[in-house]
Amino acid sequence: MSTTRPGRGSNSVNLRLYNERTLLQRLRRAGEASKADLARWAQLTNTAVGSIVQSLEAAGLIETFGRRQEGQRGQPASLYRLNPKGAFGVGVRLDRSSIETVLVDLSGKILARRAHDLLLPPPDRALDLVRRDVASVLAVLDPAERQRLSGVGLALPCNLGSWLRELDLQAGFRVWDEVDFGALLAQAVQLPVFKENDGNAAGIAELFFGVGRASSDFLYLFIGPAIGGAVVVDGEGMRGSTGNAADVAMIPVPPSRLASAPDTGKSWDILLSRASLNALARHLRFHGEPITGRADLETCCERGLPAVREWLDDCIDALVPAVRSAIAVLDVPVCVIDADIDAGLIDELIARLDAGLRSIAPESCGTPQLRRGSFGADAGALGAASLPMFFNFSPRADVLRGQAPRSAAVLHV
Amino acid sequence: MSTTRPGRGSNSVNLRLYNERTLLQRLRRAGEASKADLARWAQLTNTAVGSIVQSLEAAGLIETFGRRQEGQRGQPASLYRLNPKGAFGVGVRLDRSSIETVLVDLSGKILARRAHDLLLPPPDRALDLVRRDVASVLAVLDPAERQRLSGVGLALPCNLGSWLRELDLQAGFRVWDEVDFGALLAQAVQLPVFKENDGNAAGIAELFFGVGRASSDFLYLFIGPAIGGAVVVDGEGMRGSTGNAADVAMIPVPPSRLASAPDTGKSWDILLSRASLNALARHLRFHGEPITGRADLETCCERGLPAVREWLDDCIDALVPAVRSAIAVLDVPVCVIDADIDAGLIDELIARLDAGLRSIAPESCGTPQLRRGSFGADAGALGAASLPMFFNFSPRADVLRGQAPRSAAVLHV
Repeated sequence: MSTTRPGRGSNSVNLRLYNERTLLQRLRRAGEASKADLARWAQLTNTAVGSIVQSLEAAGLIETFGRRQEGQRGQPASLYRLNPKGAFGVGVRLDRSSIETVLVDLSGKILARRAHDLLLPPPDRALDLVRRDVASVLAVLDPAERQRLSGVGLALPCNLGSWLRELDLQAGFRVWDEVDFGALLAQAVQLPVFKENDGNAAGIAELFFGVGRASSDFLYLFIGPAIGGAVVVDGEGMRGSTGNAADVAMIPVPPSRLASAPDTGKSWDILLSRASLNALARHLRFHGEPITGRADLETCCERGLPAVREWLDDCIDALVPAVRSAIAVLDVPVCVIDADIDAGLIDELIARLDAGLRSIAPESCGTPQLRRGSFGADAGALGAASLPMFFNFSPRADVLRGQAPRSAAVLHV
Repeated sequence: MSTTRPGRGSNSVNLRLYNERTLLQRLRRAGEASKADLARWAQLTNTAVGSIVQSLEAAGLIETFGRRQEGQRGQPASLYRLNPKGAFGVGVRLDRSSIETVLVDLSGKILARRAHDLLLPPPDRALDLVRRDVASVLAVLDPAERQRLSGVGLALPCNLGSWLRELDLQAGFRVWDEVDFGALLAQAVQLPVFKENDGNAAGIAELFFGVGRASSDFLYLFIGPAIGGAVVVDGEGMRGSTGNAADVAMIPVPPSRLASAPDTGKSWDILLSRASLNALARHLRFHGEPITGRADLETCCERGLPAVREWLDDCIDALVPAVRSAIAVLDVPVCVIDADIDAGLIDELIARLDAGLRSIAPESCGTPQLRRGSFGADAGALGAASLPMFFNFSPRADVLRGQAPRSAAVLHV
């Protein structure tokens, strides 16, 4: 389904909004600045910056915290920074085997958290549980802070009901593909809900609070039960026509060589089957390790079991051509790697992936700089919570064009 | 090398420029419109649109061509359309085995052309030749038209000096990697030069004059001597950090199974080695066909030689996983296929690729709509010529942000 999304005309209201968000972004990245700093940086007049700073301060999004002498004479200039209590976001991350709800502030600090490790129940029961968790995390805000809640972000795997075989799940998740959980949640909590797939949400957390402070173009990979990803180009998360850009799990790769891998009967498999913690768990169980959750996986990594290394070899063999393909298409200079467990695994993945990418780099092609993700197991929930703040406070080109975000990502109650 | 390209503030000058270009784009896509049509569509006031239309008409970029009765009463409204003679662009396409120079108008019509099939000479000799060709195509413009020349677009393969083995060339192209031919050309012809790699340039022609009139998101593939590509997202060509986004030629694939393929001694090869007319020419020569140029290749395709079919099988086996990977990363709904030769080859490629993509589509994943490119062998030169017009007349987000294009793509004299 191919459509032309028309680029409409823009106006001075959009312009003002865009400039407000540009200055907020600058403060988020720089930490602190005077009005003169901001005007110089943004190439706006002092009058324009003064007016924007005044309204951002009145809205409680920024605050002064001291003065600095600029030049030889005159009054010291006030310094501004983001007010961490200027906005709050709730994040809900649903996975096939966990539900997590967090409350974060504008600085990305997690203020409250509720988590459940459980096989995802049917939508109505999940909704009950999430509704209670949202109410519970919101209880830490006082009434004035509650006014600054920017909404609820919802992150869930794309096609939740699919790939149950690849993920060794015997469950009836199909119903999840037929329900609009975002709309149900918006109705239940009476707040705007912003929905993204979990990989893109985690990538937005990295863009808003992590690597994105220094880097505007990167490929983001998150190794969880499955593997998720995000693409950030020019400081914006790429959504894709169906909201599934960076669906790295679906990249075709050769079949696994692990004895534990199910026979696909095909000459190819998908990256999901090999570069995922589910594949690691399956391989460990095959070798007699009882694995019931993330903690067991971390323990096995710490013990340095040969089976962990075998899986790592197989994972890297699949990951190297997949990442090389993605980099050839995107031409981004950085690839961020994060995972749901650590115990040395992330550093090992990065070192092995780096060596692998160097070994197949074609003539005249460089390899991306590999960086560790900032949030590990928190990436999913923090990503969800960053969605309402990202859509409300980031200078996206859509804002300037006066366009709504590219999809039905925003559900108002 | 990772840098943050700051999103600066914007102003009313950028806003006006962006709105002008938005209306031009609308006229390019819609063909004709009244001021009221444009105001409704762009969500701008009648006054704003009237002022913009007046200045576009004064600049000769648009023209009236009749009237239409709108509503029950009042004067019929003037209808506007692009003035094909409102702007001109020169395109220079350098390839390892050809040099082509064209002059096109704002409608994409090729007004003059000079072409040479020759092994690319050293830069100084190529410059002499191109300078003469540019002067020669410009001679068809009268002095008034000459004032409306928007510049010269230069398209050349990325890393021209590389992959000579894969392309069976014994030549000293390394010098091309060390020279800034765009700067030399700007100096020689005393015109601004806009440089892109050939795949991206051809993709911009498709965006500006072809499939892009109906589709704002697509992957573009061009099978020439090598294989080039482009990615269009939200109506903008993706450039990439080094100007090499959509470098599909470098996607890793399994080695070729053709007897004619050189032994790489590796378990992988690059798409360039298999999905390119060079690979077809090599395979035909291996089977005793004397191939000296594109015409010979077309003749072999028309004759339906078994060797053509063998290469096609091998090409598709490489192309299917590569395109599947690119679509997983980009989530674009359309893939455009074009080639330097036809004789039925393009339709055959599309049908075979479509079947291949369907056969490996993972659960819950669709396949892109495959479309024929609009320009065939002209794509490269037309792409080059569209660069100055695209950068001057398209409503890119960079315009609204008051930013220069993302790279040193624009070389002013």
